[in-house]
Amino acid sequence: MERIHIDWDGRRLRLLDQRALPDRERYVECRNARDAAEAIRQMVVRGAPAIGITAAYGLAMEAMAGGDLDAAAALLRSSRPTAVNLFWAVDRMLAAGRDPERLRREAEAIDAEDLEMCRAIGRAGATLLPDPVTVLTHCNAGGLATAGYGTALGVIRAAVEAGKSVRVLADETRPYLQGARLTAYELMKDGIDVTILPDAAAGHLMARGEVQAIVVGADRIAANGDVANKIGTYTLAVLAEAHAIPFYVAAPTSTIDLGTPAGDEIPIEERPAEEVTTLRGVALAPPGASARNPAFDVTPARLVTAIITECGVLRPPYGPALQSVRPPNALKSLG
Amino acid sequence: MERIHIDWDGRRLRLLDQRALPDRERYVECRNARDAAEAIRQMVVRGAPAIGITAAYGLAMEAMAGGDLDAAAALLRSSRPTAVNLFWAVDRMLAAGRDPERLRREAEAIDAEDLEMCRAIGRAGATLLPDPVTVLTHCNAGGLATAGYGTALGVIRAAVEAGKSVRVLADETRPYLQGARLTAYELMKDGIDVTILPDAAAGHLMARGEVQAIVVGADRIAANGDVANKIGTYTLAVLAEAHAIPFYVAAPTSTIDLGTPAGDEIPIEERPAEEVTTLRGVALAPPGASARNPAFDVTPARLVTAIITECGVLRPPYGPALQSVRPPNALKSLG
Repeated sequence: MERIHIDWDGRRLRLLDQRALPDRERYVECRNARDAAEAIRQMVVRGAPAIGITAAYGLAMEAMAGGDLDAAAALLRSSRPTAVNLFWAVDRMLAAGRDPERLRREAEAIDAEDLEMCRAIGRAGATLLPDPVTVLTHCNAGGLATAGYGTALGVIRAAVEAGKSVRVLADETRPYLQGARLTAYELMKDGIDVTILPDAAAGHLMARGEVQAIVVGADRIAANGDVANKIGTYTLAVLAEAHAIPFYVAAPTSTIDLGTPAGDEIPIEERPAEEVTTLRGVALAPPGASARNPAFDVTPARLVTAIITECGVLRPPYGPALQSVRPPNALKSLG
Repeated sequence: MERIHIDWDGRRLRLLDQRALPDRERYVECRNARDAAEAIRQMVVRGAPAIGITAAYGLAMEAMAGGDLDAAAALLRSSRPTAVNLFWAVDRMLAAGRDPERLRREAEAIDAEDLEMCRAIGRAGATLLPDPVTVLTHCNAGGLATAGYGTALGVIRAAVEAGKSVRVLADETRPYLQGARLTAYELMKDGIDVTILPDAAAGHLMARGEVQAIVVGADRIAANGDVANKIGTYTLAVLAEAHAIPFYVAAPTSTIDLGTPAGDEIPIEERPAEEVTTLRGVALAPPGASARNPAFDVTPARLVTAIITECGVLRPPYGPALQSVRPPNALKSLG
């Protein structure tokens, strides 16, 4: 399972351009912090952990080139203002000093730690899956969004590595199609059996007994265990309960936000209607049509069978379970 | 609410080419049964009632042109072999004799009766909706699929005509996007407030209290009230139950199949993967990706609040209720 989306040779960074997937495997080369910031801004790279790693390498390259680190840090911070890991990674790099060699090692450590965190999530989650199993997932909580290996897809990879017979059903995940474009892409690369389905077909397959487990990622987990994740996650959780299928959330403890008591306090971003009514320039709806485009939804804790973290598998009641795993610096740095 | 998709002037038929919607309003002209059969085969026209009407006008034009009616009937029957209404309409036309004027009147009667049936469904269903109301619908059970007015959309139109304040949420309905392309198109034409949403966003909007009723059509209703309809319908029914939202099915009694005891005996067509993995020639998934594409799903009767027919509103238990409304000739003709 070779990593192909973040290619670091100790001097320069090459990023797989995720905007071009699945049509083309095109790389964008970054030689300094400005290049890295532009890659983040233009969504060449996506996923909070992968963005943090890109920013860290951007600062390391800037130091090696003798550039202005404070200006570079400001530029990187402005490239995706809502990405928690971006701020955390920039702060951690600046705290490591100004020495280029030291900064290179720090960036490589951030990268390696993220990969190890995903592997730990995978190991913890793989034990939950029966053998054989068909797992349904949504969006892309995968290697492409992290240093590699992924969170929800890390659980799937670890189960495969443990010798289990795993088939994956990947919701296509409208409107951005992260499932069809990215999850299918990276699982096919790894030779894992993956089948795409329209989001609205998931319930039908559950009713026919074709799904034994659901594993998704998380964008934020509130203190009570409510989970904000890609739009459509909540519907899967309701369907899982109706069919008595376990519903697992795989996420690093950095996703836990103890400052948010419950999911109803998490603001839901509404994105432009055009993302729903057009696709790569093709009109999918009449001119002037209105569309809703909520980016996320909230799954109440009562529908979550377990939360799989790098510190192990958390079970209800989630309040005490989430407090027992110490959130890392990521959230502290947001103040 | 002017009908634009079936334009009959007593001599020739012009059909709105639904394949070109929503981009272009292009018409296909039919002058005989061969043209009508080709329009059905090429999916210029869709929806069982609209197909039946097209076939009837095709035979009427053939008679007026002095053609071979038996050959024309065979050609029309072969144009969409699974369409129940197509066989029924052809049989009814042949039973009316050979006189061109008589056949013209018979086709016009089939057309007019279908429109009146839709209006009766609408009147019955409109009483069920509160005022104001936001109604969620799926696919296109609309005027474009019938003589006009529609079944599920007929209920919505009748509620608007009754003076109720109605907002419509239209599931885009992947993979064919009938909601985004057709439902939005025809409701916008009528000045009815319609907003498209990704299928996976419906649960989120229900959880936020933004939906007061769900109205969908049906492809087939089993003797026990189980409903086969476009893929995604079942998921909406599960979500409706979880949020205590009424779930209504609007369909003519010709949709009732007393010969099928329960929904699990209805075969579910799996369509080609390419309909999911590509869109108008654009690749949405990696080359060679597998995809599931079930065309329909089955909603168990226990999740259906009421079935709205041209004979009135049916309530559980559906077994006796469905037997009380006499299925018309459509199904008998299938033998």
